[in-house]
Amino acid sequence: MKRFLALSFLTLITTMTQTNVLPADEGLWLFNNPPKKHLKDKHGFEEPQTWYDHLQKSSVRFNSGGSGSFVSADGLVMTNHHVGLGALQKLSKKNKDYVKDGFYAKSLDEEFKAVDEELNVLMEIEDVTGKVKSAVTKEMKPEEAFEARRGAIAKIEADSLKTTGMRSDVVTLYQGGQYHLYRYKRYTDVRLVFAPEQQIAFYGGDPDNFAFPRYDLDVCFFRVYEDGKPAKVPHFLKWSKDGVKDGDLTFVSGHPGHTDRLNTVADLEYQRDVRYPFALQRLNRLEVMLSVYSGRSAENERKAKDLIFGVANSRKAYYYGLAGLQDAAVMTKKKKQEKALRDALTKSPDLKPLSSAWDTIAKIQTLRAQNAKRFNLLEGGQGFNSLLFGYARTVVRAAEELPKPNEKRLQEFGESGQASLKQKLYSKRPIYSDFEITKLADSLGWLTEQLGAKDPLVQKILAGKSAQVRAAEIIVGTKLADVKVREELYNGGAIAVNASKDPMILLAKLIDADARKVRKTLENGYGEPNEQAYDKVAQAKFAIEGTSTYPDATFTLRLSFGPVKGYVEDGKKIPFQTTYEGLYQRNTDEKNRFPYDLPENWLKRKDKLNLKTPFNFVCTADIIGGNSGSPVVNRAGEVVGLIFDGNIQSLVWDFVYTDEQARAVAVSSQAIPEALRAIYDASSLAEELISGSRK
Amino acid sequence: MKRFLALSFLTLITTMTQTNVLPADEGLWLFNNPPKKHLKDKHGFEEPQTWYDHLQKSSVRFNSGGSGSFVSADGLVMTNHHVGLGALQKLSKKNKDYVKDGFYAKSLDEEFKAVDEELNVLMEIEDVTGKVKSAVTKEMKPEEAFEARRGAIAKIEADSLKTTGMRSDVVTLYQGGQYHLYRYKRYTDVRLVFAPEQQIAFYGGDPDNFAFPRYDLDVCFFRVYEDGKPAKVPHFLKWSKDGVKDGDLTFVSGHPGHTDRLNTVADLEYQRDVRYPFALQRLNRLEVMLSVYSGRSAENERKAKDLIFGVANSRKAYYYGLAGLQDAAVMTKKKKQEKALRDALTKSPDLKPLSSAWDTIAKIQTLRAQNAKRFNLLEGGQGFNSLLFGYARTVVRAAEELPKPNEKRLQEFGESGQASLKQKLYSKRPIYSDFEITKLADSLGWLTEQLGAKDPLVQKILAGKSAQVRAAEIIVGTKLADVKVREELYNGGAIAVNASKDPMILLAKLIDADARKVRKTLENGYGEPNEQAYDKVAQAKFAIEGTSTYPDATFTLRLSFGPVKGYVEDGKKIPFQTTYEGLYQRNTDEKNRFPYDLPENWLKRKDKLNLKTPFNFVCTADIIGGNSGSPVVNRAGEVVGLIFDGNIQSLVWDFVYTDEQARAVAVSSQAIPEALRAIYDASSLAEELISGSRK
Repeated sequence: MKRFLALSFLTLITTMTQTNVLPADEGLWLFNNPPKKHLKDKHGFEEPQTWYDHLQKSSVRFNSGGSGSFVSADGLVMTNHHVGLGALQKLSKKNKDYVKDGFYAKSLDEEFKAVDEELNVLMEIEDVTGKVKSAVTKEMKPEEAFEARRGAIAKIEADSLKTTGMRSDVVTLYQGGQYHLYRYKRYTDVRLVFAPEQQIAFYGGDPDNFAFPRYDLDVCFFRVYEDGKPAKVPHFLKWSKDGVKDGDLTFVSGHPGHTDRLNTVADLEYQRDVRYPFALQRLNRLEVMLSVYSGRSAENERKAKDLIFGVANSRKAYYYGLAGLQDAAVMTKKKKQEKALRDALTKSPDLKPLSSAWDTIAKIQTLRAQNAKRFNLLEGGQGFNSLLFGYARTVVRAAEELPKPNEKRLQEFGESGQASLKQKLYSKRPIYSDFEITKLADSLGWLTEQLGAKDPLVQKILAGKSAQVRAAEIIVGTKLADVKVREELYNGGAIAVNASKDPMILLAKLIDADARKVRKTLENGYGEPNEQAYDKVAQAKFAIEGTSTYPDATFTLRLSFGPVKGYVEDGKKIPFQTTYEGLYQRNTDEKNRFPYDLPENWLKRKDKLNLKTPFNFVCTADIIGGNSGSPVVNRAGEVVGLIFDGNIQSLVWDFVYTDEQARAVAVSSQAIPEALRAIYDASSLAEELISGSRK
Repeated sequence: MKRFLALSFLTLITTMTQTNVLPADEGLWLFNNPPKKHLKDKHGFEEPQTWYDHLQKSSVRFNSGGSGSFVSADGLVMTNHHVGLGALQKLSKKNKDYVKDGFYAKSLDEEFKAVDEELNVLMEIEDVTGKVKSAVTKEMKPEEAFEARRGAIAKIEADSLKTTGMRSDVVTLYQGGQYHLYRYKRYTDVRLVFAPEQQIAFYGGDPDNFAFPRYDLDVCFFRVYEDGKPAKVPHFLKWSKDGVKDGDLTFVSGHPGHTDRLNTVADLEYQRDVRYPFALQRLNRLEVMLSVYSGRSAENERKAKDLIFGVANSRKAYYYGLAGLQDAAVMTKKKKQEKALRDALTKSPDLKPLSSAWDTIAKIQTLRAQNAKRFNLLEGGQGFNSLLFGYARTVVRAAEELPKPNEKRLQEFGESGQASLKQKLYSKRPIYSDFEITKLADSLGWLTEQLGAKDPLVQKILAGKSAQVRAAEIIVGTKLADVKVREELYNGGAIAVNASKDPMILLAKLIDADARKVRKTLENGYGEPNEQAYDKVAQAKFAIEGTSTYPDATFTLRLSFGPVKGYVEDGKKIPFQTTYEGLYQRNTDEKNRFPYDLPENWLKRKDKLNLKTPFNFVCTADIIGGNSGSPVVNRAGEVVGLIFDGNIQSLVWDFVYTDEQARAVAVSSQAIPEALRAIYDASSLAEELISGSRK
């Protein structure tokens, strides 16, 4: 946009700030564009770029879906217990339940290699917007434009991988406004060092989830290894023994997964009317199904533990997210903002054409809604809820995709993602036949309900049998639980896959054409026009509101910040932090009843613990799902806490940031070494945190 | 139908028996038309009508939704714990949880009056088919026909009430093929005598619900009073000390609630594609919401206990019911039966016109589907899940309906139902403000999701606020928790209701026009043509298959029967009964873990119990929801058991009876006095059972 526009719209901008200014400390900022001016003006914070670079390179992404940070020079990684939960679950077996009992490696020898974990550290960011956008011309049809862009991205990623050897992902920002190339250092030898019992990590369980005051030791430590030895990492965060005081400015560095803040109103209405209700119905069903399975025996409970946690966690986020979307006040605010922006556009002949973008986005929601269910069920795999289906799908598609040139492949089969894809496919995680049958049968029922029993594909899938019988015959018949079989099929390519009579492979093949078809329909009819339209929306926003804004979350590294601050709820003052004393009070009030019971050692060793130690605190830093495990640092860049949740009021942050009551919730830095020493006899780990290296 | 038709179709009937004959002991039989020939031919059972009359008059209906029987001359009523659960819940208060701890009245003085309970005993049945049908002529439009029939029924009921003083209900059988007038003796002074702890009544909880082998003491005793004294009842069932042996013929007398066995295929497809999925989605949501509420504190858990049980119980029934409907084998069988019947019709010029009924039923499913959601949410009240909304609705509608002539009122406001309606409205059950807010807020969200945030009525209901805020202001603002306020409004009629500014009354008024409108649309466009069409289907069935068939369940008294019989599941033989020994084994295997833990007295007093005592057994008697609490009697009419469940395989009995694996599940008669003596120090109650009267 031309610069004079900013000037000619000066009056307008002044008017707009009243409704449209970013609230105080809002933002999921890019590390290559942090809001330095705001930080200086409002908080007197003026550290040089090296401060940001250090925090960036001390931050870690758990590819399984979370955040973390290096907290010692010897590759020690801190994250949440619930981020490590998947790894704990995969290590657990009958009569050895690390989720329930916790884990502590007293020496390096005892550090346990986690299955499937891949950690990424963001090393470089390169703006490739020009390269990506120039691949698409105005004359192209949506299909051509989509393919051209996909091809350009695949080439940029593959070239970068070849040149640097680093994992290279092109990230779409502002839903199509910008493209940045992110280069990561990958760690795949990730070992478990310490995890407390789930009962204290997730104290208060689902009822307290997204609540505050809170008493959770939601922490877990891993260590990355290179060449069989603890990795020496050049960047790690120092530990603060003093934690936070009320009002302290804090920073959070992590990987927020997904937000819809820049969405147009039509897009948000789609979320409210279609996406959220559908997701919530499915999550409710899954939660009930998993609870019933889990209730049947202690062993079932162990097998289903991480899934139940994940499902209930998402369900609660969707429940309150939908409640927020259904709140007329939220939508009215969004409408006002949108109207102001569009009105501003009409006043400039240069910007006016951009306004059509909103109409385009509104128009394509119909096609999106018509295809979403089928997409989720077939292409998203929700109709085939089994790990083994996932393996079958990968193998079947790899046989078709890998022979194609890199630029022509489905995105997930690109060169640059091969290493991660294989790591997942060859996972040694345990697979339980009875559990797979239960999940698959349930999802086949869900598929039938959603697509209709008369759908010809549904009828082919069920083959005249009940969902239960069909699921059982597929799971009992498939050999894909064996890693070797998966390897043979993957390496054997089309010949091996086509020769296979494995019932899960046959199922994946049976639905593949339909799944690809609905994906293509959405890519061309919704995805591509959507990306082009949001490019225009972004241009409009840059022009009217200035470029110092942040893109929606994309599970890439972002910086947030805000003061430590209590709030008022139902007329009651909620203090900014809790202590260990509060934990024991809660336990007594609830008579040690689940989910307010305590692990045995916490009851036995209460007197060894300094009960005045701060336990959890809240701040206004802007976070969202994916930020779990993010370090909270002070002005000096020292760890003062560990993000593990947001409160109920923060669940509208998906769409809109507010800081009246909404808060991020963190474990206090003081709580962690205190518990390690007093409860877990893990003084050497506590020492490593505080000194910054192994003794 | 003319009699010769039966003869001219002889060949056909013979052919049809191969696919269409009633399986061995299928049937929910009317007491005025029991299958005596079948019982004689197959089981050599030949008792006179007095045997049936005695069983009929010993049977009791719990108007809240269950069955029971008199088991002593002094008005002692046996039913299931889960039928008495509502009453137990309503008696419970903070620090006095009868659901959890059980209840035993050692003397008459201690017998506790149950809130809201109404018990009905069926005394007379009169066939009024002619009177009802003659009110409707062919020339009438659906609306006229509906009103004429409603008027005729209201008049028959009111006349009967006036003449006999007995509760008089006209029951629609064969979905419109016949109408019978049922006259009941009403008992409203119903007192609680004994209930065990829910943990043993519902041992194994939701995971074991609808499962077998089973170990549940699902029993509860009430006593009916008249004039402040235990009622002397002329008919009651004697107790069998010997219980059942494998293969014994048993009879079940109870009140099956609803079946869809005579439904046409189009109707079943509606159930499969619309009703069941919608119901299941709602139940899943309710279950999750209630679990979260319940988890938050022990007190919440107490408040929500009966609702959670009911919701989870229904959810499981719908889950497996839907799985059955989605099973192509089940639907194919139904299609074959329907085709055979319709083919038979085409061969007779007299019967051929009846065939249009199937087409009519298929056609009206569209209108039904279009209006079902709105009907359930507005008229069914699913969008306003609060006891207080129910009271408001009753008061608002009574003001409008009661001034009308009896025949013109909405059915539920007819003269004959007034006593029961007032009993419900003036209930003294406890109401918890926080719980009402939670339920109402959740259901307003569900309403918004289902009707859409753009629906003008939804917008009026929410009044620009979030569901949570709106629910809180209504519940905090309403005075309807006070019985006196409800009485004043009910007695004050239109003037009082119109003057009221109570927010719940205003809500009920706000939606009333829309609710009535969708009800009328369905009555005229679906209900009336449906009733007329099923009348034809019934005529066709009587003509082709003979009149010795039974109507679908209508929550009225029915007789079922079948032998005690184990079955084979996944290749494993499941014996016909369990014992107390098995209970303790299960408890040990599951390490006393919830829901397989035992109440304290059961652990302490194990050695006082004869562990060889039979505990639960299965038989093939045809039952369905509503049969809970039904007595199981032997050929001598003695109690050998107490129905409390069906197994998972029986959940398709909604649509189709099979007896390969499907079974009714009962508590053995021996288990009850044994537990009363050994665990509960309730020998005098055990004695009353065995001797048939109080000492």
